[in-house]
Amino acid sequence: MSDLGPHRPAPSPASLPARPPDGWGPPDRSALRPVEGGVTAPEGFTAGGTHAGLKPSGRADLALLAVDGEATGAVVTTSNLVKAPACRVSERHAADGDVRAVVANSGNANVCTPDGMAHAEETARVTGRALGIPAETVLVLSTGVIGVPLDVEVLTGAIPDLAAGLSPDGGAAAAQAIMTTDSVPKQVAYRVADGQGSCVVAGMAKGVGMMAPSMATLLAVVTTDAPVTRTVLRQVLIDSARSTFNRITVDGEQSTNDTVALLANGRVRRPPGLTALTTGVRAVCADLAHQIVADGEGATKVAAVTVRSAPTGETAERLAHAVATSPLVRAALHGADPNWGRIMAAMGAAGVTFEPERVSIACGGLTVCRYGVATSFDRGRVSAVMGRDTVPVDVDLGMGGASATVLTCDLSPEYVRFNSAYTT
Amino acid sequence: MSDLGPHRPAPSPASLPARPPDGWGPPDRSALRPVEGGVTAPEGFTAGGTHAGLKPSGRADLALLAVDGEATGAVVTTSNLVKAPACRVSERHAADGDVRAVVANSGNANVCTPDGMAHAEETARVTGRALGIPAETVLVLSTGVIGVPLDVEVLTGAIPDLAAGLSPDGGAAAAQAIMTTDSVPKQVAYRVADGQGSCVVAGMAKGVGMMAPSMATLLAVVTTDAPVTRTVLRQVLIDSARSTFNRITVDGEQSTNDTVALLANGRVRRPPGLTALTTGVRAVCADLAHQIVADGEGATKVAAVTVRSAPTGETAERLAHAVATSPLVRAALHGADPNWGRIMAAMGAAGVTFEPERVSIACGGLTVCRYGVATSFDRGRVSAVMGRDTVPVDVDLGMGGASATVLTCDLSPEYVRFNSAYTT
Repeated sequence: MSDLGPHRPAPSPASLPARPPDGWGPPDRSALRPVEGGVTAPEGFTAGGTHAGLKPSGRADLALLAVDGEATGAVVTTSNLVKAPACRVSERHAADGDVRAVVANSGNANVCTPDGMAHAEETARVTGRALGIPAETVLVLSTGVIGVPLDVEVLTGAIPDLAAGLSPDGGAAAAQAIMTTDSVPKQVAYRVADGQGSCVVAGMAKGVGMMAPSMATLLAVVTTDAPVTRTVLRQVLIDSARSTFNRITVDGEQSTNDTVALLANGRVRRPPGLTALTTGVRAVCADLAHQIVADGEGATKVAAVTVRSAPTGETAERLAHAVATSPLVRAALHGADPNWGRIMAAMGAAGVTFEPERVSIACGGLTVCRYGVATSFDRGRVSAVMGRDTVPVDVDLGMGGASATVLTCDLSPEYVRFNSAYTT
Repeated sequence: MSDLGPHRPAPSPASLPARPPDGWGPPDRSALRPVEGGVTAPEGFTAGGTHAGLKPSGRADLALLAVDGEATGAVVTTSNLVKAPACRVSERHAADGDVRAVVANSGNANVCTPDGMAHAEETARVTGRALGIPAETVLVLSTGVIGVPLDVEVLTGAIPDLAAGLSPDGGAAAAQAIMTTDSVPKQVAYRVADGQGSCVVAGMAKGVGMMAPSMATLLAVVTTDAPVTRTVLRQVLIDSARSTFNRITVDGEQSTNDTVALLANGRVRRPPGLTALTTGVRAVCADLAHQIVADGEGATKVAAVTVRSAPTGETAERLAHAVATSPLVRAALHGADPNWGRIMAAMGAAGVTFEPERVSIACGGLTVCRYGVATSFDRGRVSAVMGRDTVPVDVDLGMGGASATVLTCDLSPEYVRFNSAYTT
C-alpha cells in the first residue's frame, strides 16, 4: 500500500517541470529564445477570454483569437469516429487555408447533442459577423462534457463584447478560458532566428484527462508572424503534432474534440528559413504537450518513456506507447516502485515482436534489467530517483537503430477521484 | 470530486456479487446444480496448499492438485510475448494430453529471471517424483512478481510433505495458496446432468490485477470426473475460455503467466453428453471469471457491458472491450456518474465502424442516450442504479444482430494505492 495521503494536492504551477526532458522535443533549441506571453506574442494577433455562461462555476469559458488582416491556417483534429461538430466545421473552414479567427469554448463539448452542427456553424457565423470577416475563415473549438445540449445563445451572446475587447495582451485570458480540469493555463512563446531573419512562434493549450495517442484531448492553438504558404503550413503542423501531441498520453483515452490549429499571418518582413520555423513550431508543440502531461489529472510527475535500439521507428513508438499507457506501470511510477516486470509485460502485450532476452531497462538512469533479467540494483536508490518530478524510463531492445519517446504521467488516486464524479 | 472516503475497504466476501449478471455465461443453467467445494469436488482428485516460503507474509504460496490414476488434460496460456517458463513447460507437458498433476505457486512469477526454465522444469520433476508419476504429466503454474529470481529450493523443498498430505478435502487450501492480491479464494463446483448421466465440474482461480482481454492475469484450474478425449477436452477449454475469461477485464493489462488448465479423469461411469458437459465447463469458467472481476483490485462493483445489434460478433466484442477497459468509463462507474459520453468516446476510438447517430445506451436498464443524443433521463435515478453491486451497461448499435458482453469492474482510488507499491 502507498503511504501517500489521500488528499495530496495537485502540483502547484511552480512545481511543474517547465521543460520536456532531454531527448524529447525538437533536435536543436539553440535557434530559440523564450519570450513572454502566448498566442498574441507574435505580431498582429489579438485575443481575449470571458465568462459566457457555459460553466456554472462562473469561470471563463469562451476564448477568441483574431488576426489583424489575412492569415493562412491549418488544423488537425481527433481520429475518433465520434467527432465533434466543431472539429468538422474547423476542418471545412481550414480547407482553403484562409483562416482569420479561432473561437474556442470550454464547459461543453457540443458532441452527441441535438443540433450540434447547426450550433457550431452559428458560433462561426456570429464570430465572423462580430469581427467583420467571413464565417468560413473562423475555426471553432469546443471542449467539456459530452452529450449535454449546448445553449448556443448563451455562447453567441457573449461574442460581440468579447470581439470588441480583443487585445494584443489577451493571450493569457484566452489560455485561461479554454481550461477544463486544467490546474494551470498553458502557453509558451519563442523567438526563432537564423541567418535569414526571425519570427515569433507561440501557442496555448488545454489538457488534461482523456489524453491519448493519436491526439490527446486537447485544444491547442499555435500562432506565428512568419509568412507560410497553406501547403507548407499544413505539413509543418502535421509533422509537429505527430512528434509531440501524438507522443503523449495520460490515460490512453481519445477525445471526440481534439483540435490543434496553426495560424501564420506573415507580418514579419525578414522571416527565418523553413528549418528554423519548423523547429520553432515543434518546440512550441513540445512544450505545450509537456505542460499538458505535467498537469495530467492527478499527476505528480512526468515520465519520458524511451524505447531505443528498435528495428523500426514504428516498433519503438508502439512499445513506448504500450509502456506509457499501462495503468500498472503508471501506478508503480506513482509509488516510485521499480517494478520493471510490468514494463516487460506491457511490451509483451503490445502486439509487436522483440526478444525479451535482449531487453535492458533503466529507470532514472539506473539499470534495473539487463538482457531480460534483473540486475542487482539498489532498490532504495532507484526508488529515490523515481520520486523526482521527471523520471526517464529507458528501454533498450538491442535490435536496431530506431527509437521513440512518449511522455506520460503517473496514475494517482486523485485521477480516479477527479473522474468518478465529473458530471454529477 | 467524489465524496467517497479515501480508505473505503475492499468488499467483504459476503458483499461480492455471487453470480454473473443475466445474459452472461452459459445459455442454459437448468442442467446445473451447485455442489460444495472446488477442484476436488469431482471424484478422484486430491489437493492441498502450504506455505513453502516464497511469500514473506507467511501465507500459503504453494498448491498441488493430483489425479488418482490417469487423466486427460489441456492448457491455454497467455498470448503475451513475454511468456513465463511455467507456461512453456505446461504447454509442452499438456501436448500429448496426459496430465496427472498441477503444481502452482504464488509469490513469484518466475519470468524474466535467470534459470527460469530450469527452475520450472525442476518444479515439475520434484513434483513427479513425490507423486510417483512422470514429470512430463505435471503442469506448472506460477504467479507473483516478475523479474525477481525464484528460490527454487524453497519451492521444491516443500513439495514432498505437501504431496504426502493431499486430500479430497484439500480444494479450498489449494485455492487459498494460489492467491496474490485476491481478497477471497475463488472456487466453484456444479453437478451437471442430462438424460444420459451426470458428472461434476469444478474449478479454482486467482485474479485480480492485470486482468485483460486475451487472457486475464489469472490462474485457473478446472476439473471434472467425466471422461473426455484429449482433442475434445482441448476444444471445450478453448471455447469456454474465449467466452468467459477472455471477456473480462480489470485494467486492460495482460499478464506474462496466465494459465487455464482443464483436467478430466473419467471416473464417472455414466457421464452426461457433450452438450451438458460443455455447459458445465462454461459455467465453471464463467463463475470463476465473474468472481475474479468482482474481486478486482479496488473494485466495488461489476459492470456487464453488452454491445448488441452489431453487424458482426467481432465488432460487438471489440466495442464492448473498448468500453469495459476505458479508465474514464470505469472511474465514472465508481462514482455512479451517468457520463455516457465517455462510452461514446471509448467506442469511437476502438477502430471499428459504427454510426453514432444510431446508438442507444442504457445504464442499469435506464436509457440515457437514444440515437446518439441524450434522453431527458433522471440523473439521480440513473445514479442510484449505478450505485448497485452489479450494473448492466447496454449499448445498442442499431445495425445488425450480433452481440457480446464483457465484464469489468470500477476503477477506484484503491486500485492505484494497491498498485503503486507492489514490490516495495
